[in-house]
Amino acid sequence: MKISKLKKMTDELGDWRKTHFTIDLKPENVDQEVKIGGWVQRTRDLGGLRFIILQDKFGIIQITAKKGIVSDEVFEKAKIEPQASIAITGKVKIFKKAPNGVEIIPSEIKILNRAPEQLPIDMTGKTMSELDTRLNNRPLDLRLPRNQAIFRIQDQMLISIRKVLNEKRFTEIITPKIIGSATEGGTELFPIMYFDKDAYLSQSAQLYKEQMTIPFENVFELAPCYRAEKSFTSRHICEIYVLDIEMAFSDMNDVMRMQENILHSVTTDIKINCEEDLKLLKIYDKFEVPEIPFKKYKYEEILDMLESKAGISIEFGEDISTEAYRKLGKILPGYYWVTNWPTEAKPFYILPCSDNPKISESFDLQKGWLELASGGTRVHDKKLLIKRLKAQGLNPKSFESHLNAFDFGMPPHAGLGFGIARYLLILTGAEQIKETVLYPRTPDRLTP
Amino acid sequence: MKISKLKKMTDELGDWRKTHFTIDLKPENVDQEVKIGGWVQRTRDLGGLRFIILQDKFGIIQITAKKGIVSDEVFEKAKIEPQASIAITGKVKIFKKAPNGVEIIPSEIKILNRAPEQLPIDMTGKTMSELDTRLNNRPLDLRLPRNQAIFRIQDQMLISIRKVLNEKRFTEIITPKIIGSATEGGTELFPIMYFDKDAYLSQSAQLYKEQMTIPFENVFELAPCYRAEKSFTSRHICEIYVLDIEMAFSDMNDVMRMQENILHSVTTDIKINCEEDLKLLKIYDKFEVPEIPFKKYKYEEILDMLESKAGISIEFGEDISTEAYRKLGKILPGYYWVTNWPTEAKPFYILPCSDNPKISESFDLQKGWLELASGGTRVHDKKLLIKRLKAQGLNPKSFESHLNAFDFGMPPHAGLGFGIARYLLILTGAEQIKETVLYPRTPDRLTP
Repeated sequence: MKISKLKKMTDELGDWRKTHFTIDLKPENVDQEVKIGGWVQRTRDLGGLRFIILQDKFGIIQITAKKGIVSDEVFEKAKIEPQASIAITGKVKIFKKAPNGVEIIPSEIKILNRAPEQLPIDMTGKTMSELDTRLNNRPLDLRLPRNQAIFRIQDQMLISIRKVLNEKRFTEIITPKIIGSATEGGTELFPIMYFDKDAYLSQSAQLYKEQMTIPFENVFELAPCYRAEKSFTSRHICEIYVLDIEMAFSDMNDVMRMQENILHSVTTDIKINCEEDLKLLKIYDKFEVPEIPFKKYKYEEILDMLESKAGISIEFGEDISTEAYRKLGKILPGYYWVTNWPTEAKPFYILPCSDNPKISESFDLQKGWLELASGGTRVHDKKLLIKRLKAQGLNPKSFESHLNAFDFGMPPHAGLGFGIARYLLILTGAEQIKETVLYPRTPDRLTP
Repeated sequence: MKISKLKKMTDELGDWRKTHFTIDLKPENVDQEVKIGGWVQRTRDLGGLRFIILQDKFGIIQITAKKGIVSDEVFEKAKIEPQASIAITGKVKIFKKAPNGVEIIPSEIKILNRAPEQLPIDMTGKTMSELDTRLNNRPLDLRLPRNQAIFRIQDQMLISIRKVLNEKRFTEIITPKIIGSATEGGTELFPIMYFDKDAYLSQSAQLYKEQMTIPFENVFELAPCYRAEKSFTSRHICEIYVLDIEMAFSDMNDVMRMQENILHSVTTDIKINCEEDLKLLKIYDKFEVPEIPFKKYKYEEILDMLESKAGISIEFGEDISTEAYRKLGKILPGYYWVTNWPTEAKPFYILPCSDNPKISESFDLQKGWLELASGGTRVHDKKLLIKRLKAQGLNPKSFESHLNAFDFGMPPHAGLGFGIARYLLILTGAEQIKETVLYPRTPDRLTP
């Protein structure tokens, strides 16, 4: 990286502290002295007049330094390079052409940290750098207003999800991510050396959240889980942040309703509170609060639909391929449920239907072609659970501790797992799941 | 486990759904038909009169079945074994002796799942089972009202922490727990096999949260971190849930004030909203909302205090031993800060004081003898950071990607890490950190 030839001076922060964020400054603050901080988005030098566009976590504001009006030191410092970190003390003035209607006349500029002339990412917004370059320089990449907007939307999403679940008196649980054995019997596990024992990274909070219905009834967790899957697609990552929900005295219909309420609250809150972010992403006009309840299609209805409308024939029991989902997404572009999957296609803990044990009380939540959530009514009877384990070729002895919990008056229960980054992909119109995760982990990406 | 000799009949949940939790039922609900569910805490059989104490996630209520008044089926079912999962439909009646002033006359009892006669844990509350037995049967153990109370308090704690941080417009970040190299250069790391690469479980979100001040300024994360420490104490575990905070344009004093505000809000909310839980834990009267700000003692003042008041002599630069902390906890039983630690005793990212680089802008938060949090002002200048890395015997090349971030106009920043389970220990008066974690991980505990 080339080092700027400008003198690399910096100032101390000292007892200078921000009084406002950029978006807080309005015409009613006129003539107030304020302290704002952030970094230089760009500058303009018209000879006797210099402008800094200062960006912070929420937006931008113009700093106007006119020779003779501001001190010589301030005027000199107003020539600072983009992405340097700065602190401004100044007066608010009306400036009708600015988005928030004001600008700042600086009385002090502190240069807190410098940036080199050449940056690894184009920060002017003219061209979008390669995704790999962006991810290799993620903190800078995330300063692009578009990327800030994506994660401001994530923030609102997380707040809204918790708001709904707290109101419904769910208990937040924190379950271990280091596990002693393969929970779901899968092979896609990352092995850990745990002192002198073999252990694994948790693939899902499934068994723990089921157990936690025993003391706490309705529970949720927002936490990472891990899949050692060598998938290189736009929607797969190896470290996945998941909303896990489990509800006692409930079946799959209760869980589906709860999830619909969550998505309805999240999108309503985003539409109201993230208007500027949606506009920045150019999706405000088409951003919709979906109508609930979502349409439900049985797995077998989906097979018929694929056959008749897309010419794709899938045999009962088989999974729906990505190609088929892509076509399905064109027929059903909105949110919808695919319910009652073949029992053999679902994990051992999913309850077979009592009137036809070949199909199960299970569901996936789809948005067009993309799967967002998966869940169902669980088996709560110990004998049936052992039978289901065996039917799936698993050894009940490996699940001894989990099976014991079914002796403690395990209530009937149901739940789901919901991928946060995939949902953020839908909400923001991003192209790649790697864009909706701060530091994604894929088979070939372990740093930064 | 012995299987009960009683007929193991169960009912289907069907479309029965709860209308209330036990604590929602008040005298004003008299004569209403309600549906409540949970499990049998205990029963009493007086011949023609049978009682069930039904417990749910929030409390208990008495179900009264009098022969001739209730149906024969209901009367028969009222003889159900403890810990069975049940659903009751019934009418609310005034019962002045009950804690909430009401009881339920059942019109229907559904037995949803059974429990064996012999349970691995004493659920009568008379004696406390061994901790290992309790942890081996954790879902049942957590049904003990005392344990439910501990995690209801945790729930309030997490809600209050997030409330403060959301109000202050911190951005919630989700950082990777799989890392490609040893972040802090420590040896206490769990190795992972990441496809064909060596990786580790994250010891702390430190480097990522510092980087995230670049786009988001003030950030926080609530997430697990991992320490492969062979400690067998009442306060150490290997999987630790931590609140990480990092604040831009701030120094350690801002972070300490923020943490004081958080603890003040958490304890105020618990005192108001968890009154019954504190009473159940027999700590309501002594539960205090601590006065803020907490007292601050410099590391050197603490050494003097230990010397003069406890006869313990520690040389400048040395750590404070557990024994010394135990004595200190008797001298200073409340919350207090220990600030300005020797620079060499703190990690490379902690800022040395400008007037005396042998001491640093660092702090620990103590409650009596127990350390709850640790933090400080960070180095934000790249050259100084490289110098500090070298001084601590670390290779700057291993931190290349992190160091690059310091070219992106890294703002001055400060932060802390705060252990959730240790704080819950303090809040609830539990004896052991293993009691304040749902499924603790220690060197010898990997399941359940």
